[in-house]
Amino acid sequence: MGWAIALHGGAGDIPVDIPAERREPREAALRRILQIGVSALNAKRSPLDVVELVVCELENCPHFNAGKGSVLTANGTVEMEACIMDGNTKKCGAVSGVTTVVNPVSLARRIMEKTPHVYLAFDGAEAFARQQGLGTMDNSHFITPENIERLKQAKEANRVQQDYSQPIKPKERDGDSKLGTVGCVAVDSLGNLAAATSTGGLVNKMAGRIGDTPLVGAGTYANKLCAISATGRGEAIIRETVARDVAAVMEYKGLGLKEAAAYIVDQVAPKGTTGLIGVSAKGEVAMPFNTTGMFRACATEDGLMEVAIWKTE
Amino acid sequence: MGWAIALHGGAGDIPVDIPAERREPREAALRRILQIGVSALNAKRSPLDVVELVVCELENCPHFNAGKGSVLTANGTVEMEACIMDGNTKKCGAVSGVTTVVNPVSLARRIMEKTPHVYLAFDGAEAFARQQGLGTMDNSHFITPENIERLKQAKEANRVQQDYSQPIKPKERDGDSKLGTVGCVAVDSLGNLAAATSTGGLVNKMAGRIGDTPLVGAGTYANKLCAISATGRGEAIIRETVARDVAAVMEYKGLGLKEAAAYIVDQVAPKGTTGLIGVSAKGEVAMPFNTTGMFRACATEDGLMEVAIWKTE
Repeated sequence: MGWAIALHGGAGDIPVDIPAERREPREAALRRILQIGVSALNAKRSPLDVVELVVCELENCPHFNAGKGSVLTANGTVEMEACIMDGNTKKCGAVSGVTTVVNPVSLARRIMEKTPHVYLAFDGAEAFARQQGLGTMDNSHFITPENIERLKQAKEANRVQQDYSQPIKPKERDGDSKLGTVGCVAVDSLGNLAAATSTGGLVNKMAGRIGDTPLVGAGTYANKLCAISATGRGEAIIRETVARDVAAVMEYKGLGLKEAAAYIVDQVAPKGTTGLIGVSAKGEVAMPFNTTGMFRACATEDGLMEVAIWKTE
Repeated sequence: MGWAIALHGGAGDIPVDIPAERREPREAALRRILQIGVSALNAKRSPLDVVELVVCELENCPHFNAGKGSVLTANGTVEMEACIMDGNTKKCGAVSGVTTVVNPVSLARRIMEKTPHVYLAFDGAEAFARQQGLGTMDNSHFITPENIERLKQAKEANRVQQDYSQPIKPKERDGDSKLGTVGCVAVDSLGNLAAATSTGGLVNKMAGRIGDTPLVGAGTYANKLCAISATGRGEAIIRETVARDVAAVMEYKGLGLKEAAAYIVDQVAPKGTTGLIGVSAKGEVAMPFNTTGMFRACATEDGLMEVAIWKTE
């Protein structure tokens, strides 16, 4: 038994013919950020520190839908969300609706550690971030030209679009196309577990919309058995309490991580909406998804290392 | 097998010597509102309609911490939250941080039925309520003299106080005293289930704080087995995903409603923080709590009717 780590950059309908210039920077980012997490685990940093560190890196990468790469609301603004949870204590922190905080996952951790609450949102969360001296940037910092174009096209198509991995082509305007979120789960060699997730949400979402990411038990969960970060269509993940259900099936039915994760992803309705990453206290890793693909990476102390987008078998 | 309904007006450290003038209006309100729910079930209204109707009545009653009786944030404002969920479809709607909406539970239902989302919060939720023509009142409408006094005393005691059932006396300023929320669960004679919960949150809460009430799987949950509404210390209920866990223990361990509900309430850490009401598809009712008391009421088609505050056996 040793440490294990997994991270994701979103699950969705990722075409297998995605152009190399869109695939390669994301694969490179996953590989680079995985290595940061591995180094931190090898340096004996706590899983809670590791998942925060890794998710900060993913937030800072404009290729993923979180932090700097967050997609835009129907109002053309960014409203970011994040959650972090410690498995041993079940302590957790969550944030929604922040517009200027560079690393929402770090704000979630401050909420966990410095307030009597679990979850702060919108103006109150922004005010707390400032009080804590966390890094902020004007909302326009987060708004990339690509995301302005995605919102324009989503508005033309008049729908809420779950997208982030590439510009919408006219032929892709029907269906849900791609979904996005970032997350990390980690376990150390003592079995201490942590999970974190962060997102910009959906292209063209209504202002004020909260997704699964910040909701304990939906997009993010950790206890003494496992740590889970989910990604996909948030509304389905909320209804199915996906992250808690993986842990609940382990706890109440006695399944192992891989079986539990596969079972829950298979159960979520509708199909084609959900992926997740998980690690167990035993150092196992699972990364199932029922979408076309999921940007993901994992490593374990005994030498497993994987960076992948589509099904590998 | 027939219909069943349960409702609550909050769980907490309710002293058994609470003055009659504070006890009796609440008991009378529970009895009156229970009868409204029973009449609606007898009139074959859907459980979803029934829980919305009952929670609206509880929101309109200034004796409970939701809607008109909502406690105040540290800023002296009201930020209300609510959630509603249909068991058959797992469709759900939730809202946080509304300041002017008379019946947040009805806004939650509109979000469920009229948006592609599950959950809206703060300004976006307010804007949607106005767009839908839901009843609103100036924020000051919700601010009762009692709640102004509670906030003043909580600030003097410099803590976040979970309170609503009576003014704080100096001797009560330590500890958590009373907690509050309202909720309703209902099942019809065909086994259709629904749950709804609504709250003003905690006295002296930080602006932007989200509690368990609107979180699917924490304060509110329904599937084809049961419908659950929890109340108590929100942060504990979030960490323990209380409402989903009752259903998960039924689903994955095969326990009945009463055993599952008692088991989960017994597990929640810390002790003394949690109560819940539940009904099952078989028409069973459970109302366990590990606090001193819980304002509650229930009725079933076969003639059971109960209105109670403290343990009854």
